[in-house]
Formats: sequence, C-alpha cells, structure tokens
Amino acid sequence: MKKKSESKLKIIPLGGLEQIGMNITAFEYEDSIIVVDCGLAFPEDDMLGIDLVIPDVSYLKDNIDKVKGFVITHGHEDHIGALPYVLKEVNVPIYATRLTIALIENKLKEHNLLRSTKRKTIKYGQSINLGAFRIEFIKTNHSIQDAAALAIYSPAGTIIHTGDFKVDYTPVFGDTIDLQRFAEIGKKGVLALMCDSTNAERQGYTMSERTVGKTFDNIFSEHKNTRIIIATFASNVDRVQQIINSAYKFKRKVVVEGRSMVNVIGTASELGYIKIPENTLIDIDQMKNYPDNQMVMVTTGSQGESMAALSRMAADLHKKVTIKPGDTIIFSSNPIPGNEKAVSKVINELIAKGADVIFQDVHVSGHPCQEEIKLIYSLVKPKYAIPVHGELRHLTAQAKVAGTLGIPKDRIFILRSGDVLELDDKDAAVTGKVHTGAIMVDGLGVGDVGNIVLRDRQHLSEDGIMIVVLTLEKYSNQLLSGPDIVSRGFVYVREAGDLMGEARSVVEEALDNCLRHKISDWGKIKTEIREALSDFIWKKTKRRPMILPIIMEA
Amino acid sequence: MKKKSESKLKIIPLGGLEQIGMNITAFEYEDSIIVVDCGLAFPEDDMLGIDLVIPDVSYLKDNIDKVKGFVITHGHEDHIGALPYVLKEVNVPIYATRLTIALIENKLKEHNLLRSTKRKTIKYGQSINLGAFRIEFIKTNHSIQDAAALAIYSPAGTIIHTGDFKVDYTPVFGDTIDLQRFAEIGKKGVLALMCDSTNAERQGYTMSERTVGKTFDNIFSEHKNTRIIIATFASNVDRVQQIINSAYKFKRKVVVEGRSMVNVIGTASELGYIKIPENTLIDIDQMKNYPDNQMVMVTTGSQGESMAALSRMAADLHKKVTIKPGDTIIFSSNPIPGNEKAVSKVINELIAKGADVIFQDVHVSGHPCQEEIKLIYSLVKPKYAIPVHGELRHLTAQAKVAGTLGIPKDRIFILRSGDVLELDDKDAAVTGKVHTGAIMVDGLGVGDVGNIVLRDRQHLSEDGIMIVVLTLEKYSNQLLSGPDIVSRGFVYVREAGDLMGEARSVVEEALDNCLRHKISDWGKIKTEIREALSDFIWKKTKRRPMILPIIMEA
Repeated sequence: MKKKSESKLKIIPLGGLEQIGMNITAFEYEDSIIVVDCGLAFPEDDMLGIDLVIPDVSYLKDNIDKVKGFVITHGHEDHIGALPYVLKEVNVPIYATRLTIALIENKLKEHNLLRSTKRKTIKYGQSINLGAFRIEFIKTNHSIQDAAALAIYSPAGTIIHTGDFKVDYTPVFGDTIDLQRFAEIGKKGVLALMCDSTNAERQGYTMSERTVGKTFDNIFSEHKNTRIIIATFASNVDRVQQIINSAYKFKRKVVVEGRSMVNVIGTASELGYIKIPENTLIDIDQMKNYPDNQMVMVTTGSQGESMAALSRMAADLHKKVTIKPGDTIIFSSNPIPGNEKAVSKVINELIAKGADVIFQDVHVSGHPCQEEIKLIYSLVKPKYAIPVHGELRHLTAQAKVAGTLGIPKDRIFILRSGDVLELDDKDAAVTGKVHTGAIMVDGLGVGDVGNIVLRDRQHLSEDGIMIVVLTLEKYSNQLLSGPDIVSRGFVYVREAGDLMGEARSVVEEALDNCLRHKISDWGKIKTEIREALSDFIWKKTKRRPMILPIIMEA
Repeated sequence: MKKKSESKLKIIPLGGLEQIGMNITAFEYEDSIIVVDCGLAFPEDDMLGIDLVIPDVSYLKDNIDKVKGFVITHGHEDHIGALPYVLKEVNVPIYATRLTIALIENKLKEHNLLRSTKRKTIKYGQSINLGAFRIEFIKTNHSIQDAAALAIYSPAGTIIHTGDFKVDYTPVFGDTIDLQRFAEIGKKGVLALMCDSTNAERQGYTMSERTVGKTFDNIFSEHKNTRIIIATFASNVDRVQQIINSAYKFKRKVVVEGRSMVNVIGTASELGYIKIPENTLIDIDQMKNYPDNQMVMVTTGSQGESMAALSRMAADLHKKVTIKPGDTIIFSSNPIPGNEKAVSKVINELIAKGADVIFQDVHVSGHPCQEEIKLIYSLVKPKYAIPVHGELRHLTAQAKVAGTLGIPKDRIFILRSGDVLELDDKDAAVTGKVHTGAIMVDGLGVGDVGNIVLRDRQHLSEDGIMIVVLTLEKYSNQLLSGPDIVSRGFVYVREAGDLMGEARSVVEEALDNCLRHKISDWGKIKTEIREALSDFIWKKTKRRPMILPIIMEA
C-alpha cells in the first residue's frame, strides 16, 4: 500500500482546451485510466466541407488495457458526440445519468453500436469503482437535465470536475445543484477543482431558467391573436417544458417540429423528464384544424442552421409551414459565436415575410458567471485550480477569478490538450505531453481529409481552378493534341473575353520553350506550364486560380 | 412654376437597405438627380474569393444627363468605397466636408482618378445648389470626424438625411451635433426624415467618445510597467487622439502601425484633425531605443483581419513586433457581426503568448441608440419616416421607435433597394422599382464573377474536384488513352486506398456502355461518365466532389 499512495495522479486533457467543444479528459493513476466525456467539435471556418471533428485518442488506444470506462457528465454533443467514433477503437463501458444514457443510446442506435456497447445508469449520490478510482455523481443544473459534476477519488487525492453547470436556485425540473455535497467533499479536502469557464468573462450570476418561463407568459399574453413559433435548442427540455406550460395556460396546442427536437422531446417524454398535459401536443398535419391563436410551434433552427426547420420556413422551403404577416416568432436562444450572421439572415427573412420577431432577452445561459464560479471555489476550497471548458480567453478569465479568491498563481494550471499534469497533495506540475489532435469527419470518411486537402479546398474556394490538358508523343514530346483549357470557379467565361485564347498561347509558348531547352521530364514541363500560366493570369486578373496541367501520353 | 411644385420628389435607394454597407441613394426631382453616398460592402460569407462589393448603378447611367453630383455624408468605406469604381461610369462632381474629401482623394489617387474627378469641399452650414435641389450640410457626431447630416431642399419639400451619427455632448474634436439647426429646419416643416438605424435595437443612449479616454487613462495608470498595444479602427481619429493624450500624460511615446492607420492619421494630421505633441510620435524602427513602459503602439487589426498588423503580431508573422509575456493589449473596438470568431482567435493567440488582453468596455459606438433616435425625430418632426442604414431587423426596430412617437404606420416606409418612393406634402407611396444589384469585385475583375462562378467555388470548397481525362478516336469513339483521374481537395490520396482504381473501372464501364448503345455525342458521353462516377463516389464516401470529364480528340 505504501507504494500506491506515493504515486501521483495524472490529468491528461485529450481535447476541449483551447476551444469550445470536443471535451475529453483522461485521469490516470498507475494502471487505471478513466475518461471523462467524449465530445465532438463543430468545424472551424477554415475546415471547408467538414461535417464534424472528433478527438484523436491514440493515447487511449496505446493504453487500452488500463482504460476502465467513459464517465459522461451530460448529454450535449460536445460531451457525447464523439462516442460512436471513439467506441469503435476504445470499446469500454459508459457510465452516466439516466437521460444522458438515453441520449447516448439514440446515437449508438444510429451507428449500430447498441449491442456491442456496455453502459450503466448512475444516480446522483451514487459512486462507481473503476480500477483505482471511485467516481461519485453530484447533481448540478445546466441547460440540459441530468447534468452531473464528478467527484473523482483517487489514492493521490480527490478531484472535483464540475462538468458544465450553473447554479439555479429555482430549477424547472428537479433539484437545485447539490451545494451541500460540494461543501461536504470540500471540507474533507479537495486536491483540484476543474470548473466550467464558458462564461468566466461575465460578471454576476446567470439567471434562473424559470425567468424565461415568466418571459414566455408575458409574450403569450401580449400576443393573444397571432400564431406563435418559438425556436430553441432541441436539448433544452426545461425550455420546452416552459413553452408547454405557457401554451397550456393560454389554451394553445403545441406542435413540435425539427428532427432533433422531435427526438429529444420524445426521449425526455418517455423517461418522464417532461410533463405534457393531455391533448396539448398535436401533429403538424393537424395544425390546419386550429386557428392561429390556438397554436404554438416549438422548432429547431435557433442558430440559423441552414437545414433546420425555422431556416427552411424563413426561406420558403418548408413543406408544411408558411410564415405569414402577423406571426410572432421568438428566438429563445443567443447566437453561439460564429453563428451571428446566419441568425441575422433568418431574422431578416422572417421580418421580410411580415412576422414580428422577438430575439432579445428570451434566453438564459446554462453556464456559470463569475459569482457562481466563486461560490463553487468557496465551497470546494481546492488546493489546485484547473479551469476547463473554453477557449484560452475563458480559461484565463477563470484563472483571474481564482486569483482574486487567493489561490496562488503557481497552483492554477491552464492546460493545453495533451499536457500531462501530475499532482498529489505535495505538488503539481506538467511533466509531459501525449499525442492529441483533431480528426475531421467528412461524409463516411474519418481522418481521410487532412491539411493538404483543406488547403486545396481553400485555394479552390478563393479563385477556382484552371485545368490544362495536352497530349504529348511519348518520346519526342511533340504536342499531339491540346492544350485544352477548362476552368471552374475562376471567371464567368462569357465575361472573360479572349483571356482563354491568350492563356492557350502562353501554354504553347511554355511548351515550345521546354522543347527548345530539351526539357523532357514531364514533371518539369508541368511546372513550366503552371508557372507561365500563373504569372499571366495574375498579371491579367490579380487572381491565383489553382492551375493543374495534365499531360496525356500517346 | 406651378407645374414644378406639383411634381413629386423621388427617393430611390440603390443599395444600403437590407444590409450594412453599400450606402447609395438617389434623390430625383424632374430633371435633377443627386446621389447621397457611394459606399462598398464587404463580401458575405457565401461570396467566396470576392474582395468587395459595389452597387449596380445602371439607373444612374441610364439617366446620366440628370445626375448633378455625389453628396457624401462622411468618409467611411461603406459611404465612399465604391466611388473609384462608379466614377468611371458616372463622372460627376463630389461634394463633402474637408476630411471626407481628403479621404476620397486618397482613393482617387490609388485609382489614378484624381485629375478626372471634380470635387468641392463644403463647410457645415453651407449649402450647394444642384439642379432643382439645395443641399445643406449639418454638423453631426460620429466615429469619424467631419460627418454631416444633409438637409435636402426640393420644390416638393425638405428631406433630412442624418448620415451615420450619434449625439455626443462632449465630443473629443469640434462641436456637438448641431441640434439647434435640426430644430430650426424641423420647425419650418420637414417632409421626411431618413435616420440611421444601426443601433435601433438598443435602448438608451450611446456613451460619449470621451468616456473611452477616461478608460484609457485608467488602464494606463494600472499598467505602468508594461508595453501597451492598442488596436482600433483606423478611421477613428478621435480614438487615436485620446490614445495620444493618455500617452502624453503618462510620458509614453506613440508608434502608429498598419497601413490604413498610418494613412488616415497622416491625412488627419496634415489637415489638423489630430493634435500630436512634439516628440510624441516615433517611428517603429526607433522602438528599440525606448523601454517597454515608455511605449504605446496604435495598430490596425481590431476586427481580427488576417492581414492586419495585430493579427500578424499574434501569429508571429510581424517583421518588427514580437508579442511577449507582460504586454498589455487593448481591443478598443467591438467585433462587427461576422468577425466574432476571427477576433476571438487573435485574442487567444495573444493570451497564449502571455499578453494581458483587455477587450471589454474600451469602446463606444458611433451610432444612435433609441433615445437619440427619439431626440432627432422630436427635433425634426417629419411627416414621413424612412429608416436607413441597416439590415431589415434594424430598419424595423427604428420603425417601431417611430411608431411609439406617434408617427402613423402608413407614414413609415421601410424601403428595399430599387424602390421608387414618390412623395410630396399630400402623400407618399412606392410607385415603381428600378434595377439595382450588387457587383462583385475580385482582383481586377469587376462583375466577371457571378452566381455560376460562386456556385462552382462553393461546390469546390466543400468536396473538391475529380477530373477525368480520356482520349477518344474521333469517329469510332474508341478509347485511345486514359481514363486518367486526378483529384484536388477531395481526399488525401494515400488514405483513399484503391478508390481511384475502382473509379477508373467505373468510368471505363460507363464508356463501354455508351459505345454499346451507340451513344456518340461527346456531351452525352460526358454526362454518362459524370453520373456513373458521382453515384459511385457518393456510395463509397457520402461526398459529392465536382466531376469534370474532359475528352481529348485524337
């Protein structure tokens, strides 16, 4: 036993730092590894054509014998979305609360992984033993139900990982975050606190989810004569519950629209996480049987996603719903950074159809502001602070908050993905680095699009492509046919005048030049053609299309 | 004279509505047209590779004999940026205040148009006569100096066009907006008010520019031992003045960095719009002669523009400035919608280098919030309200504000680009539509990139391109060489396994099929190849690269 207690705990984030999304962290103690969360990230602007991004889990594959399981804090995509991909390589059991397990099962079903994956539902207050670790699930509040913080007990000490959370004293469903338990564990001594940084730049408190319900009541009472359409996040079941409550109070029927909204509400309803009064929910096809002022529609599309239901309504592409003057449309959401323009576009389209669009102050965040962060730190009183969940600017903001609470700078660790933080009661330090990365998923391809392909897509997107095809006689390199020049995405050919004709002459000249200088290597000939044509096009247009010479042999 | 006064005034926005940017509005009375502003727009996200967007001025070209001149409200790009392009087709004189003219002249110089363009500097309070119109320039406040509102007097009545403005009771340079003159003209009777809508969704007042100066003083006094780098808008001369004031107070030298910053400050300084104490400004190469705590750098890059000075410093690409731990870096700006992620990226990069980055509450807007809009309406008391400058959501927000002031709904006009609003003291109505549009500028090309090219760029950016080249015998259509398949931006070929080999077989099969069915038309053969290959690739990868068959003849 002596040796055991002298080992240190390793905390190794495999993603989720330096970015929003792709949360996954390994905790390692001797021959045991547990993995907290396994999320995806949505592609950055420069990841052209990419559908989603998942973490590189080489470190887990290389240590597969140690890995005891995935412990999941809640059911958002940035915490569960990579599971179907990662499970194919790291097939270990999953532990989570009830709704979280149900949402994971929906995913496993889609990927045909339901049979091959072990999973176990854990209750708040319950602990599980995984190798050297004991993990306790603690009730929190968040913008999805059944969110949990984790107390991770190891021989080297206890870590509290908050997951994503807020402090909601008047939650819509279930209890307030279990502050007493945070205090109790804190009192016994906590080595490190890993706390949500998303809103760490914001002063004050995040408002209770229940305040949005009051706002809905006010809007419903002010818009008694119109149809009401509300867009929000599909996973925010409490939000939908409050819409249903207001609808019931104001004698309106509710239609749920959008694939992910229908799925989540279906799951939540089966499990009893949402209470829908009888005869309140109607099918979208029944809408025509009710007057506008007896209808509420809850829909996806609050982020301006082009394929989501509300965006299709705004663009007149929705098969069953036509926006009309007088409709009251509510965005119960804030744009996620990067989505501002897309959301604005949808708002403008809806206004253009005569709708009254409400998008200010009908949303509260699911993450803690500075005062809540201070509260958790003061209950837990950790020796070390490890801000998590956010870009560097958010982690740094939490580090500043922790500093104001008296935690010395050398006990605050802003980690990067791959950092190995070794810690125990005596000290803590980053002692190494493991391989991590972001793997891009494009269609069925996982990892087959890399930087070269992305750079080509970027190049193609900016100035298009010019393809030069010619046939050369094998030995003499005499031109047998071509050069033919075809372009796409470069210039509208009818506007290009004789640019293409001149381009052909430039290629012929470059080719003659090669023959004159007895350059016979086709690679070199292609380079000569590419450079001559590129210079010519730049001079004429100040554009740099990709130039692709293809030589056929005859 | 009788006939004249019976004509109506036409107001025809040729851009600037439904969007931020590209402000240009024609005012027409009988055989006189004046044009207010001539701005560019920055490309939307789906305008891949486009540099900037200018308005289609066919209407002005078609009525060139009527057009008397451009009247420009202020020197921002969205009000002057299209002039060099439009002047080539509509060469009429330009009227504006002194700094605005100077900034326009900088542009004309770049485009070699200085000689061929007439221009006249107008003072506040001064009027010019252009055909049937008299136009008076009225002092306003904005985030650039010398901004003017216009009183446009026509036989059909007076229009007040605010330009972009705010109400600043304590401006840094020059006087407060001339509220008395607005009142005086309002008292005499104003037909329509065209008022800035940018901030119409925001309650309250925009704070005075001077408040930012106080913030600078506070930051300077709290960071006495570090280098200070401040990014802001190049055109905000008052902001730079306040940085210089704080620098002088705290005994720091000032370096100006970034091409547009150097240009604007140079122009402003020559004209006396900025006061720089002797020995305050130093050249970037002199920086090394001063300790960090005696330096302030003012730089471009506050919007995260990848080529701007601060972004290059953050990415370690700047030749003369290296960010180091301890640097205090201030974003004196808010991200313009659409730039949030780019700005965040730069902030994160700077923090990663150990800099202390301050980006909250070091900026005020240059546009009026709701209370300022109400003030202007209450001074001017127009018969008709025509909200301008903004997307539909902003125009609608101003329309609501106008509604609360008692202007009846049927006297509020939310116009679209091209609408012809005819009005006089008796009534007002949209009576027609003229051709308008957005012309994309890409490199030297103006208007040679249209929707087809953009659609191709979009397609190329998502899944890349596969090019199939083959040589057919002219009459028999026998395959002589190929098919060769080349791809770019589709898949990393080393990861693609035998996909390319299989693809070649698919193409050969499609070709055989054509021969068997005696399909000899090359267009049809290409279609068959494209469809067969597209189906195959979709099945294998769920991607849809552009497929481009090229048939060579031998």
